[in-house]
Amino acid sequence: MTVERFLQEKSQRTVAALEACLEKYAPAPKALVEAMGYSLFSGGKRLRPALVLGACELLAGNDAPALPAACALEMVHTYSLIHDDLPCMDNDDMRRGRPTLHRRFDEATAVLAGDALLTMAFYELAQTGRADAVAALAEASGVNGMVGGQCEDMNAQGATSDLETLQRIHARKTGALITVALRLGALFGDASPEQTTALIRFGQHLGMLFQITDDILDVVGDAAALGKSVGKDQQSNKLTYPAIMGLDEARLKARNAAAAACDALAVFGEDAPVFRALPQYILERDR
Amino acid sequence: MTVERFLQEKSQRTVAALEACLEKYAPAPKALVEAMGYSLFSGGKRLRPALVLGACELLAGNDAPALPAACALEMVHTYSLIHDDLPCMDNDDMRRGRPTLHRRFDEATAVLAGDALLTMAFYELAQTGRADAVAALAEASGVNGMVGGQCEDMNAQGATSDLETLQRIHARKTGALITVALRLGALFGDASPEQTTALIRFGQHLGMLFQITDDILDVVGDAAALGKSVGKDQQSNKLTYPAIMGLDEARLKARNAAAAACDALAVFGEDAPVFRALPQYILERDR
Repeated sequence: MTVERFLQEKSQRTVAALEACLEKYAPAPKALVEAMGYSLFSGGKRLRPALVLGACELLAGNDAPALPAACALEMVHTYSLIHDDLPCMDNDDMRRGRPTLHRRFDEATAVLAGDALLTMAFYELAQTGRADAVAALAEASGVNGMVGGQCEDMNAQGATSDLETLQRIHARKTGALITVALRLGALFGDASPEQTTALIRFGQHLGMLFQITDDILDVVGDAAALGKSVGKDQQSNKLTYPAIMGLDEARLKARNAAAAACDALAVFGEDAPVFRALPQYILERDR
Repeated sequence: MTVERFLQEKSQRTVAALEACLEKYAPAPKALVEAMGYSLFSGGKRLRPALVLGACELLAGNDAPALPAACALEMVHTYSLIHDDLPCMDNDDMRRGRPTLHRRFDEATAVLAGDALLTMAFYELAQTGRADAVAALAEASGVNGMVGGQCEDMNAQGATSDLETLQRIHARKTGALITVALRLGALFGDASPEQTTALIRFGQHLGMLFQITDDILDVVGDAAALGKSVGKDQQSNKLTYPAIMGLDEARLKARNAAAAACDALAVFGEDAPVFRALPQYILERDR
């Protein structure tokens, strides 16, 4: 199966499950559920849920046990984009080719829809009965994970900073959520400790690869393909790989991360063809 | 034991446990942990954690098993105040006699500190291994609980509305979190189904009592004692009990709710003196 086909299939499964979640919440205020749906169903690559489902399928031959975790992770990712786009944060007007949530609705609704998505993520995950999965997702999303990374990223803007700071920020802000995708897939796929370690290392390298290519796309990418404005990082003095090491070095670093991600999968032998092809796919992405 | 003493003791236990949580998060960005602490340790009655701990103690003779749940609930309550105070929401400058978090720090930090508290609440609760407790807290805080209530409350401002709407909004916005406090206490105190039902009914009446007295205090309260501005509900055309039924009827309704809360405790006979005294205490509160 091609990576493209894999992402498409897992995205469809995730979207169908997310739709079922929202339907279940129907007694809630209509405006709130509409706002949550606006952001949840605005396209996007759905990379994180695909990693959850792909890892579980690789281990258990079936991705169904991990479906609530895939939904929960996509809800957390979506809430983080909504809050990051707010005027007091990155102040973005466009996301995936459409107005951001606070532009389409209003700021209060955006704050609340984000809060609701984060809350319901833990609700869905808790329905599996796995408190360890809840703890893993909360750890990756919290003060020493995504939220902590976003906080440090905002404070680092404009300050002179080094590669070590950048890597720590990205490991938290982007890496933690990609890594926990693999961890959740391992958990619901009943991975051995060895398999879990391998998948987590795969996730760590993939997270770094993803962030470097994201930074590169902000410099050389096409706004139409990306569905968002480019050159924004430089304008806002954001700490990025190209800014610190130049474009060529950043590209080399991305290729190294892709190779390391593949190497991490050695324990699976020939069993993980799609995961093995994924780093190259991310390396070549144009959106 | 008097209600005052009970609240004081449980508050001290909760604060000590919350301090230990924050210390544990130390590798996180300092500004973020500082902001979380600023709001967590700004006083307040700590009614919700006291209810969690009191219910567990009533059932199990010991409140220790419920301590993580008490912390989690206080974190959720605190995050909700931070986000509700934001300029795009209620736009409040003062809370408990001090500048609100976004006034003391900035809006971005307030959004992130709220997000972090909500996330870490689920982290702490998941550490108990009880996924059912996580689901209960998420349900009470989510689209059909607190966040849903806040959303509907904002949309109802200025609109002509009836008692039924007001009660539904308050049941979600305030009632759900107070009720889940009792539910969590029951869960960690190994309550029988009959005891759980009684505690939940106690919580429902207590939640209504709490909200009515809150509305009344906004009309007749003393700003200095409350540590926040009064008369704000009327200025902002907020839907309140006094606005709908007049002050005298609202006071009668509060007394009825207090009586119903006491009645709900019948199953505990003479074993719940503090819980039985609590409604009268809330009825007479001046802050």
